[in-house]
Amino acid sequence: MSRLSDNSWGKSSVRVSKIHRGDDGDGFSDLSVQVLLQGDVEAAYSAGDNAGVLPTDTMRNTVYGLAQDHLTEDLEAFAQTLVDHFLAKDGITAASVSIEGRRWERAGHHGFVGGSSERRVAEVESSPAGQTYRAGIDGLVVLKTTNSAFSGFPRDEYTILPDADVRLLSTTITTRWSYDRLPADPTVAWATARQEILDHFFTDWSASVQHQGWLMAQAVIDAIPEIAEIEFRLPDQRHLGFALERFGLEDRGVVFHPVSEPYGDIRFKVTR
Amino acid sequence: MSRLSDNSWGKSSVRVSKIHRGDDGDGFSDLSVQVLLQGDVEAAYSAGDNAGVLPTDTMRNTVYGLAQDHLTEDLEAFAQTLVDHFLAKDGITAASVSIEGRRWERAGHHGFVGGSSERRVAEVESSPAGQTYRAGIDGLVVLKTTNSAFSGFPRDEYTILPDADVRLLSTTITTRWSYDRLPADPTVAWATARQEILDHFFTDWSASVQHQGWLMAQAVIDAIPEIAEIEFRLPDQRHLGFALERFGLEDRGVVFHPVSEPYGDIRFKVTR
Amino acid sequence: MSRLSDNSWGKSSVRVSKIHRGDDGDGFSDLSVQVLLQGDVEAAYSAGDNAGVLPTDTMRNTVYGLAQDHLTEDLEAFAQTLVDHFLAKDGITAASVSIEGRRWERAGHHGFVGGSSERRVAEVESSPAGQTYRAGIDGLVVLKTTNSAFSGFPRDEYTILPDADVRLLSTTITTRWSYDRLPADPTVAWATARQEILDHFFTDWSASVQHQGWLMAQAVIDAIPEIAEIEFRLPDQRHLGFALERFGLEDRGVVFHPVSEPYGDIRFKVTR
Amino acid sequence: MSRLSDNSWGKSSVRVSKIHRGDDGDGFSDLSVQVLLQGDVEAAYSAGDNAGVLPTDTMRNTVYGLAQDHLTEDLEAFAQTLVDHFLAKDGITAASVSIEGRRWERAGHHGFVGGSSERRVAEVESSPAGQTYRAGIDGLVVLKTTNSAFSGFPRDEYTILPDADVRLLSTTITTRWSYDRLPADPTVAWATARQEILDHFFTDWSASVQHQGWLMAQAVIDAIPEIAEIEFRLPDQRHLGFALERFGLEDRGVVFHPVSEPYGDIRFKVTR
Repeated sequence: MSRLSDNSWGKSSVRVSKIHRGDDGDGFSDLSVQVLLQGDVEAAYSAGDNAGVLPTDTMRNTVYGLAQDHLTEDLEAFAQTLVDHFLAKDGITAASVSIEGRRWERAGHHGFVGGSSERRVAEVESSPAGQTYRAGIDGLVVLKTTNSAFSGFPRDEYTILPDADVRLLSTTITTRWSYDRLPADPTVAWATARQEILDHFFTDWSASVQHQGWLMAQAVIDAIPEIAEIEFRLPDQRHLGFALERFGLEDRGVVFHPVSEPYGDIRFKVTR
Repeated sequence: MSRLSDNSWGKSSVRVSKIHRGDDGDGFSDLSVQVLLQGDVEAAYSAGDNAGVLPTDTMRNTVYGLAQDHLTEDLEAFAQTLVDHFLAKDGITAASVSIEGRRWERAGHHGFVGGSSERRVAEVESSPAGQTYRAGIDGLVVLKTTNSAFSGFPRDEYTILPDADVRLLSTTITTRWSYDRLPADPTVAWATARQEILDHFFTDWSASVQHQGWLMAQAVIDAIPEIAEIEFRLPDQRHLGFALERFGLEDRGVVFHPVSEPYGDIRFKVTR
Repeated sequence: MSRLSDNSWGKSSVRVSKIHRGDDGDGFSDLSVQVLLQGDVEAAYSAGDNAGVLPTDTMRNTVYGLAQDHLTEDLEAFAQTLVDHFLAKDGITAASVSIEGRRWERAGHHGFVGGSSERRVAEVESSPAGQTYRAGIDGLVVLKTTNSAFSGFPRDEYTILPDADVRLLSTTITTRWSYDRLPADPTVAWATARQEILDHFFTDWSASVQHQGWLMAQAVIDAIPEIAEIEFRLPDQRHLGFALERFGLEDRGVVFHPVSEPYGDIRFKVTR
Repeated sequence: MSRLSDNSWGKSSVRVSKIHRGDDGDGFSDLSVQVLLQGDVEAAYSAGDNAGVLPTDTMRNTVYGLAQDHLTEDLEAFAQTLVDHFLAKDGITAASVSIEGRRWERAGHHGFVGGSSERRVAEVESSPAGQTYRAGIDGLVVLKTTNSAFSGFPRDEYTILPDADVRLLSTTITTRWSYDRLPADPTVAWATARQEILDHFFTDWSASVQHQGWLMAQAVIDAIPEIAEIEFRLPDQRHLGFALERFGLEDRGVVFHPVSEPYGDIRFKVTR
């Protein structure tokens, strides 16, 4: 007889925004929240008994209800409030809240420019086994026109890539780090990590995406003592040459063909 | 001093298609392939030494090169060919290949209609620890206009959802199952699993998404003895009522407002 | 002094679905409706006077309210009902309704499989100048593995494309046609037009996308006497060869690299 | 007998990037180019004769070939170069080039941050009837937390929207303007128009999206004498209240539910 193993239920893509009125202008939060619960729900699966299944519609309503009093720019604190709320219920054995914040840049006292693909991420999970805090960035698109190389790699019958001493490097940064203990101000810690990543991407010479990622990971770990571990996923988004010699032209190496697929897919974790 | 832990590199979204010429018409494969390798590459991260880093461009070329002789409708076999090719290289300690196949429906001897969001998935991973086979479906969109309910759930101060004895149920099925041993014909096994899922979605009455999923999981496990475990992710994509009484109308319960976000997020695994 | 010229306001992407209960099973409509109005609203622009601006929120509500009694599988009839409703209001001088219907394939009495990119489109516009009816298809993805060529084209210093006597042809069909007068059953007319397009795509040999499109346009005009004019937009979505000789392989011409951008962009109109 | 009327062919989504090396750091262009031609090609449609059909693959190659010598930050000049190149060919009677430029913000001498949805657009069309120049913006996402209202509108049986004296206003700006004559520096003109739009969105109080748009249009026309006409498409992207009273809470009007569909759809043109 088969049996239920890992399972969870929740509400994803709960879009919530909030104005933070202030004397020197307004702040604005624009979030997508995901709630996932675990609990005593075997009977829901095997017998259609919903006595333990808090509706996902209720979870959505709760996000809006608690946002009014508890949502500030400290996303970790709001995630914690939600986690604690759900864990206090009968039959709920674990709760996880993940929040993505959109980037809105202030323009004047009441205005904002949006449209960036970048997201700030905050995740809190809690169960009897303990509590974990993770933070990170999605969709941070960066490019540099020099200070990157890729050469000295192994070759086989399918290798046609030439060695490159200088190349354009472009990626969309996805990163998550876990905290041993939450920093005093998680928003400041997040901004510090982001700045370290950008500074080292733009300034450090690198021999590969892997090397570039390592340098960024070291910088973040050095800057923020509460971080235990950081992982990156760094697609190598190529701007390829176009072989202009085919048209009787000298190729001066400044014109490229950006390709969105396929992409090099580099993933790694660095532990303190 | 921090250290590199989990890491892999590869090529994602390698789009490859192939015509299978035949006497009674052509077959057509249209795939997106992902290759991920692990190996002795610490020096690439910490010292910029690429001696062990097979270029992801080479992986892409390999997919096309091996497709000519080895790609058939048996996606598991092609994934295995790729995995074996990469694992045979010096310094490569693990290889994983994941393939997504698009759905093209035959129309006549040489024609096909596409455009479906559904994908067939085949995944092979190999390392000294052993070999794993997973298969599955992404993006299979289904809906039924009856034979679904949701009632008897717990209520709190944020609950406004009414009990529903009959409701419209719609989801986009994502599922993965693992094989203890590969079936004789993985393509037939995949089609059998898909049909079981559809049949039980359309025919079985269910008390919740969880209950519906359980019934589908049981059916697949019963039908295919090689399957060890199956997991589902089933978004509850709601078609909400629109409260027509606000306009002085009687609401007869046949007009809905489909919402794409938020969505109920149901995830579970069933083990034989 | 500058002045307001063309203008309209409305509600787009109003998602509405409806169950059509029947003795031999249910039908299901899943639509995205767009309403656009014109009227005496210059003061809204120049002076912030909203006396003539029917709220777009009201337009949305109207779609749901009228759907209960008036939405059937005849999309043109529902569009006409909406247009007439809005045109009857003071100060509204023109109304346009465009409806996109998603494709759900019946599976049993109460079940449906969705996920297709294809949409049926119906558009009705009305103003004192008269009434226009347009219908069409979006997102119909087709491919054939033979019966297509492209050769005999002009060459210049940037031309490297070889002549092709046989090639794979793939496109995503977008088409709109206008009716002189509405057919007795617009749903049947739409299905007939769709079938003519598919039959001629799959069966006719063509020398180019343009030639293929011409043959499909002729077939539709021949089949449906009420059609005055038909236009197509046909992207040439290439499956490129991959130059396998670079790896010491003979290229047998069956393996391809599908590319999503750029694409050939063929647009034309045929008038009876 | 039916006949070919409007028609064109070309290449869309040609992605091209270029590094502009400089003493005080690099510039970077990242474009998507569309070429559309008209010409003597009736025989291609009706008879499969491709003698007049310049391949779209050749158009793509031409974009890369001409980019090396002619692509600078002046997108209108590059579009003109392409248009002139194609119009000089036998049998080509009209050429149109539309360019979208992605936004990359400089970070240091060689680095850039991307990921914005905003695009700069430049369009040049040429035929014996004359030459037209259009420029514009796509995807500029803005929001303000006050200085916007919507009240005094007409009400009917489907109206439930309350009057709002203060509301949050959010939109994604799409705009195109046409030039009577090209400004001396189109890049400076574009930046001026963009800044006027932002300044007036953030600073002006408005009674509706229409009123807001009018104020922005006036500002652009006043600032740039070469502009003959400007049109906007301004979706009203609502952040809705969530009716917190349902949960026994006082609603303080600061928490919202952002919805992506449906959206108010406001379109207008202002002529000098």
